[in-house]
Amino acid sequence: MTVQQKTKKARTDTAEATASAPVNIAVIKYWGKRSEALMLPTNSSLSLTLDQDQLQSKTSVRVIADSESEDARLWLNGKEEKITGRVRNLVATMRKLRADLEAKDSSLPSLANKALHMASINNFPTAAGLASSASGLACLAVAIDAALQLNLPRPQVSALARLGSGSACRSLFGGFVAWDMGSKPDGSDSVARQVASETHWPEMCALILVASATQKEMPSTAGMQTTVETSPLLQHRISAVVPERMQSIEKAIQARDFDSFAEITMRDSNQFHAVCLDTFPPIFYLNHVSHRVISLITKYNEVKSKENGRKYTVAYTFDAGPNAVLYLLKDDVAEVLRLVNAFFPHNVAAGAASDEYYGMAKQFVHAPADKVKAEKDLETEVLKGVKHFEEKGGLKRIIYTTIGDGPRILGTGSNGREVSLFKEDGFPKEL
Amino acid sequence: MTVQQKTKKARTDTAEATASAPVNIAVIKYWGKRSEALMLPTNSSLSLTLDQDQLQSKTSVRVIADSESEDARLWLNGKEEKITGRVRNLVATMRKLRADLEAKDSSLPSLANKALHMASINNFPTAAGLASSASGLACLAVAIDAALQLNLPRPQVSALARLGSGSACRSLFGGFVAWDMGSKPDGSDSVARQVASETHWPEMCALILVASATQKEMPSTAGMQTTVETSPLLQHRISAVVPERMQSIEKAIQARDFDSFAEITMRDSNQFHAVCLDTFPPIFYLNHVSHRVISLITKYNEVKSKENGRKYTVAYTFDAGPNAVLYLLKDDVAEVLRLVNAFFPHNVAAGAASDEYYGMAKQFVHAPADKVKAEKDLETEVLKGVKHFEEKGGLKRIIYTTIGDGPRILGTGSNGREVSLFKEDGFPKEL
Repeated sequence: MTVQQKTKKARTDTAEATASAPVNIAVIKYWGKRSEALMLPTNSSLSLTLDQDQLQSKTSVRVIADSESEDARLWLNGKEEKITGRVRNLVATMRKLRADLEAKDSSLPSLANKALHMASINNFPTAAGLASSASGLACLAVAIDAALQLNLPRPQVSALARLGSGSACRSLFGGFVAWDMGSKPDGSDSVARQVASETHWPEMCALILVASATQKEMPSTAGMQTTVETSPLLQHRISAVVPERMQSIEKAIQARDFDSFAEITMRDSNQFHAVCLDTFPPIFYLNHVSHRVISLITKYNEVKSKENGRKYTVAYTFDAGPNAVLYLLKDDVAEVLRLVNAFFPHNVAAGAASDEYYGMAKQFVHAPADKVKAEKDLETEVLKGVKHFEEKGGLKRIIYTTIGDGPRILGTGSNGREVSLFKEDGFPKEL
Repeated sequence: MTVQQKTKKARTDTAEATASAPVNIAVIKYWGKRSEALMLPTNSSLSLTLDQDQLQSKTSVRVIADSESEDARLWLNGKEEKITGRVRNLVATMRKLRADLEAKDSSLPSLANKALHMASINNFPTAAGLASSASGLACLAVAIDAALQLNLPRPQVSALARLGSGSACRSLFGGFVAWDMGSKPDGSDSVARQVASETHWPEMCALILVASATQKEMPSTAGMQTTVETSPLLQHRISAVVPERMQSIEKAIQARDFDSFAEITMRDSNQFHAVCLDTFPPIFYLNHVSHRVISLITKYNEVKSKENGRKYTVAYTFDAGPNAVLYLLKDDVAEVLRLVNAFFPHNVAAGAASDEYYGMAKQFVHAPADKVKAEKDLETEVLKGVKHFEEKGGLKRIIYTTIGDGPRILGTGSNGREVSLFKEDGFPKEL
C-alpha cells in the first residue's frame, strides 16, 4: 500500500480497548533463553509487581474496521515506531486466534484482518532508567486481547506477552509472580503464575534509587545470549542454584519471612551480575554508585540487626543497569531514606525540584524529631562503618512505591473514549 | 626478655644471606583455600614471573649467633613490623629443619635457636598497587634457607614460602609457573613447578596500568575465605572450569600460542571477579577505570584482528585490585601504549614527571613517524568503537616489564656485606 493510503483518516466506529499494566522487578533473575523463537527462558524467575499508580504503561489498541489494509502501526510515547519482529510475531499470533474464532462463527465482526493501530505511553520518564518493555508488552497483549474481543484467560495472555518480551509475562499478575520455565518444547508450560496477591504482604514496599549518569559509562556490547554462549558459570546457576532458590523464596513469601526473602534476593542479584562478568567479553551493569549502595545496605543491615534483631532490614536488587531497587517494609522507609540522603546528598533545592527528586517518597522525609534523634545515632554508626564519601548528585531521583495489582482494562469501545490514547480519527492524541 | 635486651647491639660475625625474588601475576587465579593451616588452595593456578630488574623484593636474614634470645624480628622497608602468625609459622618450620640437621651432626654451627633478624624492601612503591606479599615471602624463604644453611631444593623452599603467602610459592621459579593444588592431606604435593623457563617465549611482556585512586573506593570487607563459604559458583569453577583451563593454558604456553593464552587469561580474570561478586556480601575489585581498560582492549583486539589476523593482540588480567596487567608481545607494545595514552591522557608534563609515569615504558613512546601514521588510523577506529571518554588522570603510572628468572642469592656471610640490608651491628641500614 502507498503512504497516502497509510495516512488516510481512519474511521472511528470500531473495536478499541485501552489498558494499563504494571512494572515488575525480579528477585530471582531471568537471564538467558533456551529458545529465541518461542522466548523460553533457561531458568524460572520470580518478581514483585509494583503499584501501577506510580509506574505504568498505558496502551490503546484500535481495529480500523473499514480499512482494506492489514497494516499494524505502533506509536510509543506519541512517536510512530517501526514494529520489531517480536511485536509483529505477537500481533500475528493474536490475529490468528481471532481469525480462528471468526472462521468458526460467521456472525462475529471481522477484526482479524483489519488495520491495527497501537499507541503506548509510560507514566515514568525513560530517563528514570527503568525497563519499560515488560509493562509495555504486557499492556499491549492485554489491549489487543480486548480490542480483538478474544477474552483469553490471563495465563494465555501472559504466554502471548512473553513472545513480545520475556519478562512481560510476569506483568500480567499483581503481587508476587513466578515465571515457571516449563519443560515442553512448544513452551505451553512456560507461563507466569501468581504466588501471592498484592494484599498478601501489605508492608512490603520498594525504593528505587535512580543513579545519575554523571559517571560516563561504557556501552555494554552484548546481552543475555552472549552469556548463554560463553559463561561456564551460567550453566551451574541454571541447573544447581536457581531451582532451589525458587522454592526457598516462594516459601519465604508465603511465610512473609523478610530475612529469607532479603538474603535470596541480594544473593540472586549478585549472581546475575556475576554471570554477566563471566560472559566473554564481560558485561558490566553495576557502576560505582551501585557498588556504594550495596556497601551501604550491607553495613546498615549489620548495624540495624543489633537494634531490631532482624538479619536484614533492606534487600537490594539490580537489573540490567546501575539503578538499585530496594525492597523493605514500610516502617523502615523513613530511616532508610534519611540514610540514603546522608550518603548521597542530593543537589536539588527545596520545593519543586525536590518534589521531582523524591516524588511519593517525600512523605517520609520529614519524620518526628525524637525519631530523627535515634536514627541520627544509627546513621552515624553506619556511615562510620562504610566511611562517608560525599557523593553529591550520585542519585538522580528516588521513587517510592508499593506492591500492586495486575493489568487493568480502562475502557473498551465507545465506553473508552475518555481514556483512549487515540483521537476520533484513530490517530494518537497529542501528548 | 626485656626491651633493653632486645635492643642491645647484635654481633656481626655470623650467618647471613641476602636474596631477591620476583613478582608473579597469575593468569589462572588462585582464590580460596581448602586448608588455612597448611595454606592449601581449592584449585591449581598458573602465573608468569616478571623480571626482577623492574620489580623485586630484596631480603636479608641474619642469625645473631651469640644471642641468648630466640627472637625473630622483621623490618619491612626500614620499619620494624610485628611478625604475623604465618611468618612465625614459616620461621618456626625452617628453624625446626635446621635443628634436625644440628641434632644429627654436632659439628654444625648452632643456628636453629638463635635470634633471627629479617629485613625486606621492595624496589616498587607500595603506591603502585602491586601485591608485594608473593615476592616478599618467596624472598624471605630463600634468604632464611641460605642463612640457616639448609640448602633445600627449590620445590621444598616453594612449599615453605607457601606457608607465608599462598601465591609466594610461584615466585620461586622464573618463567611460566604452575602451582598444582595437590591432593594429599599433608600438602606435600601442593607445590609450584616451572612449566617453561623465562627464555621460552622471549617476545612475551607485560604492561601494568596502575589505576589512580582519584575514584574513591569502598573498602572490600572480605577476602577469599568468604567466597569459599558463600559463593555457589566458586565450587563449579573449582571442579569443572579450572582443571580444563590449566591443561589448555599449559599447552598454549608450550606452543607459544598467544590467541589461546590470551583468551584463557581474560576469561579467567573475568571469572575470578565474577566469583568475588557472587560472594555474600559481594567483593568488588574492579572499578570504572578497570571496566574501561577491558572495553578498550576488547575493541582493540577486534579491530586489530582485521589487520594482523590474530584473534587477540593483548590479554588483560586483574588481581585483587583495579590495576590492569596486560600481557602482549614486544612488537605490539608501542602501539598499545599509544592507544592507552589516547584513552587515558596522562596529566604529567614531559621530563622528570613523565619518566616517573612511564618508567621503562618510555622507550616505546616515541616511534618512527610512518609507523605512527598507520597506528593513528587504527587508533581512530578503535576509539570510535568504544567512544573516546577522556579520562585524564585515570592512570597513575605505567610499568613495562618482561618475563624473568626466579630468586637470586645476592650474597652470603662476609661475601654479602655490600648487598646486605643490615649494618655491621645487625640492624637495618638507613633507606
